[in-house]
Amino acid sequence: MRQPIVFVTDYGRDDAYAAALIGAVWRVDAGAVCVEGTHGIPPGDVLAGAYQLKALARAFTGGVVFCAVVDPGVGTGRRAIAIEAGHVRCVGPDNGLVSYLWEETAPADRRAVRLDVASGASPTFHGRDVFAPFAAVLASREQFDGQSRLIDDPVVLSEAFALRGGNRVTGRVAVVDHFGNAITTIRAADLDGAVVRSVTWPGGGCAGLLTTYADIDRGPGAVIGSAGHLEVAGRGTAAVAVGGPHLGDTVEVQLA
Amino acid sequence: MRQPIVFVTDYGRDDAYAAALIGAVWRVDAGAVCVEGTHGIPPGDVLAGAYQLKALARAFTGGVVFCAVVDPGVGTGRRAIAIEAGHVRCVGPDNGLVSYLWEETAPADRRAVRLDVASGASPTFHGRDVFAPFAAVLASREQFDGQSRLIDDPVVLSEAFALRGGNRVTGRVAVVDHFGNAITTIRAADLDGAVVRSVTWPGGGCAGLLTTYADIDRGPGAVIGSAGHLEVAGRGTAAVAVGGPHLGDTVEVQLA
Amino acid sequence: MRQPIVFVTDYGRDDAYAAALIGAVWRVDAGAVCVEGTHGIPPGDVLAGAYQLKALARAFTGGVVFCAVVDPGVGTGRRAIAIEAGHVRCVGPDNGLVSYLWEETAPADRRAVRLDVASGASPTFHGRDVFAPFAAVLASREQFDGQSRLIDDPVVLSEAFALRGGNRVTGRVAVVDHFGNAITTIRAADLDGAVVRSVTWPGGGCAGLLTTYADIDRGPGAVIGSAGHLEVAGRGTAAVAVGGPHLGDTVEVQLA
Repeated sequence: MRQPIVFVTDYGRDDAYAAALIGAVWRVDAGAVCVEGTHGIPPGDVLAGAYQLKALARAFTGGVVFCAVVDPGVGTGRRAIAIEAGHVRCVGPDNGLVSYLWEETAPADRRAVRLDVASGASPTFHGRDVFAPFAAVLASREQFDGQSRLIDDPVVLSEAFALRGGNRVTGRVAVVDHFGNAITTIRAADLDGAVVRSVTWPGGGCAGLLTTYADIDRGPGAVIGSAGHLEVAGRGTAAVAVGGPHLGDTVEVQLA
Repeated sequence: MRQPIVFVTDYGRDDAYAAALIGAVWRVDAGAVCVEGTHGIPPGDVLAGAYQLKALARAFTGGVVFCAVVDPGVGTGRRAIAIEAGHVRCVGPDNGLVSYLWEETAPADRRAVRLDVASGASPTFHGRDVFAPFAAVLASREQFDGQSRLIDDPVVLSEAFALRGGNRVTGRVAVVDHFGNAITTIRAADLDGAVVRSVTWPGGGCAGLLTTYADIDRGPGAVIGSAGHLEVAGRGTAAVAVGGPHLGDTVEVQLA
Repeated sequence: MRQPIVFVTDYGRDDAYAAALIGAVWRVDAGAVCVEGTHGIPPGDVLAGAYQLKALARAFTGGVVFCAVVDPGVGTGRRAIAIEAGHVRCVGPDNGLVSYLWEETAPADRRAVRLDVASGASPTFHGRDVFAPFAAVLASREQFDGQSRLIDDPVVLSEAFALRGGNRVTGRVAVVDHFGNAITTIRAADLDGAVVRSVTWPGGGCAGLLTTYADIDRGPGAVIGSAGHLEVAGRGTAAVAVGGPHLGDTVEVQLA
């Protein structure tokens, strides 16, 4: 058993930081398999990181170890953690990156531990010196142990989850993807099978849910995207270009 | 025999979509070798995708399976296909992505099949649910079969090929690369060994062909690039910065 | 023994150039391990390339072969070289890319050879046709030989190294990274353990050295980054956004 290590960071790809994680992994285990999840999380955007981790977890169904580093608090007192949630393990700062991985897994199938930060770690680069090495250890270890350091309260972002009140579900735009689709925190599961009457946001809206991008007509349209979240999209263009919502905007769904 | 799977898409690298293809491949074959060709095709630009596939085919001479996804029609009735053309196999939507791979291979060395789209496939993400899994199957299969689904008419883009009339060859700028070089649909082979007298485009032009970028002086210059296509380049700057053509512009070569 | 091949280029990731290097390596050695160091060096910026090579060398401590291509002089008479410097080997154009790798290694631990350029090499793409194939050869070769072609004077950029005069150390901004940190040519070693009194640049400055980004207050602050170079950073924003230096700016450190 050796699981792939998938990196999710806000490092970008134009410096040495991303590849340095691979070097750090191989220092621990020269045979580790490393995958570039994405290094394109907007700098410091923990909610976007949490969403992309969820999307990747759905793709790596055979087991995966995430090395997740969106870490504006590097060098401060924030905890370093590792979690196991179903088929997924994830190492990173304890700032909400695991929000979806943790909350969407039944309590019996998840656990979390606090990691030690070695005194020799660079105070500016915990990805290389703390998280990647521990991901390498986890990737070839059958058991997720460390009972002595067990914690039960990894940080979970409340804004990662939509609220339901009566026939109204309220969320926000968590990610605007490469195609300009505005992906919200509202999940298919939050709609509970009810018919969607309308989707609205500051200054705009659309009616009902469509099945695929090609069903979208001139204005913005809403679909359930490939990770199960409601997104607002334009036809062959960015959602904002046809009046769709911006990153961070509140989005409301009215159910029938 | 296990050939590398090379991805060519317009997904960008800032979301989970690109890496999700790797996960989908590994679900079929945990030992598959995955390579990032490029995820930087301009969104929906099928001609650019066709060119980059050709350029990559020249680099992976030992055999390769492309998973090519530039697919504005995802979720519609467009066919899903796989082709074999010489040492190359390619899986993707049937919209012209294989234009160069198909047309530049002798009929005896090429074949194409239509793929089924499973009913459970996400209507927004055929790359993950249709193309990547089938690429994984092809990569470890000696025979390219599927005779029952053989087709002989994959879509080929007419605009991918220059026209010759007398001493004039007319093409267009298919790609502007990272360095600002304007790569055209005019191939060295289209010039048939004749001497180039001039290269012109709307509002500009240059004389003859140079051997290398370093031969370019102050204005724009024309060279045959590394994939055998004529390109217009500037010296240490983008072609457009010195009066070169834009993406999509018509380019004409006058032969002696 | 087979060392990973790590690519460092200014090719970007939106064309076929980057992946073509992998294909070229595999043509020589189908089992070679290829890593994307970065393809995001600013076009033609040799100093930035030299810095990122140094940063990556610190990450791949088990031995590595760099294929480094920032090569505005491709197709001209500039030499093609390979060096060995401690645990690192590097193949590329002889234009200063190895400045740090070479200068920071003791003479007894380093050697350099000149490479032949085969006549069939594309005059526009030595990365694919010259450097990548030779990197593949080096990666599985115990000995770094080629004594007949030994050279002792690879190009080293003088601007890559800060100057010390009395209590003043003068360098420049070599790289602005993804987070907007302005990384200078001034190394912790250049400070020789002395206390930093101030760091100044055209139009701005800050006092002393901080330990980590989180120690930075409102204005710009100076820290020693993960590769041992002094950098000027803003708190959660680009250095220039809070009055920090631009790329290429002179930076001076006043020691106590």
